[in-house]
Amino acid sequence: MIDWGETALDVMNHIDGMYPRNILVILSGGMDSATCLAIAKRIAKQDGKVEGITFDYGQQHDKEIICAREIGWEMQADVTTIDLHELASHFKTALKKDSDIDIPDGVVEGVPDTYVPFRNSIMISVAAGYAQSWGFDTIFYGANIIDYSGYPDSRPEYIQQMNDVIHTHDEHLNLEAPILYLNKAQVVKLGTALNVPWDKTWSCYRGGQYACGKCPSCEFRLKGFIEAEIADPLVYEGEMKHA
Amino acid sequence: MIDWGETALDVMNHIDGMYPRNILVILSGGMDSATCLAIAKRIAKQDGKVEGITFDYGQQHDKEIICAREIGWEMQADVTTIDLHELASHFKTALKKDSDIDIPDGVVEGVPDTYVPFRNSIMISVAAGYAQSWGFDTIFYGANIIDYSGYPDSRPEYIQQMNDVIHTHDEHLNLEAPILYLNKAQVVKLGTALNVPWDKTWSCYRGGQYACGKCPSCEFRLKGFIEAEIADPLVYEGEMKHA
Repeated sequence: MIDWGETALDVMNHIDGMYPRNILVILSGGMDSATCLAIAKRIAKQDGKVEGITFDYGQQHDKEIICAREIGWEMQADVTTIDLHELASHFKTALKKDSDIDIPDGVVEGVPDTYVPFRNSIMISVAAGYAQSWGFDTIFYGANIIDYSGYPDSRPEYIQQMNDVIHTHDEHLNLEAPILYLNKAQVVKLGTALNVPWDKTWSCYRGGQYACGKCPSCEFRLKGFIEAEIADPLVYEGEMKHA
Repeated sequence: MIDWGETALDVMNHIDGMYPRNILVILSGGMDSATCLAIAKRIAKQDGKVEGITFDYGQQHDKEIICAREIGWEMQADVTTIDLHELASHFKTALKKDSDIDIPDGVVEGVPDTYVPFRNSIMISVAAGYAQSWGFDTIFYGANIIDYSGYPDSRPEYIQQMNDVIHTHDEHLNLEAPILYLNKAQVVKLGTALNVPWDKTWSCYRGGQYACGKCPSCEFRLKGFIEAEIADPLVYEGEMKHA
């Protein structure tokens, strides 16, 4: 596991010193994973291959699947959608359609209701199986430990544990989290430098026509753009009210 | 992770010394996981709950899913089938329908073509999400290190690695492999003592009407019953030819 550093410049220096690789990027449709895809494209240059993988796990905000595919299209990377939508019907979480658990406004203490049990372990395991099948040597995972919602599976210890499991199956495959230590403003700066199509990214937990601007995920996004002093091209619900 | 010992008697002694628990058993329809279900039922007694979970991952031998459900029915445990069938179409493995890779006769050296990339990590992650959702404290996994086909994900180190991942999500949930060190004859003896319905179990990698008796999985099964000096109630293809 590489230490990618804490600033957009740190990450850029890593990128430019790297040999091309074959990288599979786990795409959520959000800004972190879109930035990881941009990093992968820059590393792969002409010689490596880069693909995205995204998951339909029956989430309330399945709009993010469409966004993941659009991000791939814009950045010239094939995106495979893995259909795990039946899973959510077997699990207890607010992040699914027809859930009777409310999605909270703002950032909450501890592990929030929006936590999907073992979701990231499931996604990483499937991504690893796909990567092993088709000759990828690296999986990019957009985990972030700075501006995050307290999910246990964003922590560096967890990424190391998943690497231990992965190496049991395949010692040549590595899970990397390039933006683990970047704050959201750094992500915005880095992604902007790498031409991430921000207008195609989706962060809101609620699957409305416009981003709500209030859920924990919208809050982190808005804070990031404001601190980076870069305009967020996304339209928010409140803005429409005043239109 | 408990050391369950190396003989049927070792395991029986563990069972009888245990407090009731809530146990989720990963069922493949085969003899190892059916024996794990029987162990779970014995531990749970009247106070704990026991359920099975089985996976449709598009395998050629989907007969095992029907067997898993029948085993649950016979042993009075609800069985949930998780539909991951779309997965196989994204992976490279001989263990799926329409695969152009042949299933080998007999036991082969090293990791065989029948290996499904990361299958067990995917199944354990999903089982863990289900277990966390519905209040199970234990997951039983029928891994076996003695009479096995060289799959890396049957090894004790792997089970510990998966427990590390599981504990990041949920420190009160444990993955256990009760028959890890039993040979197949010991499994047959233990399962017989616990009334496993052997006629409902299915081991053959080929999904024919009768078990082929030749694939690695059939070979291990036949050897186990012969060494245990217990009759296998399953009908094999060769037997039918002579009928």
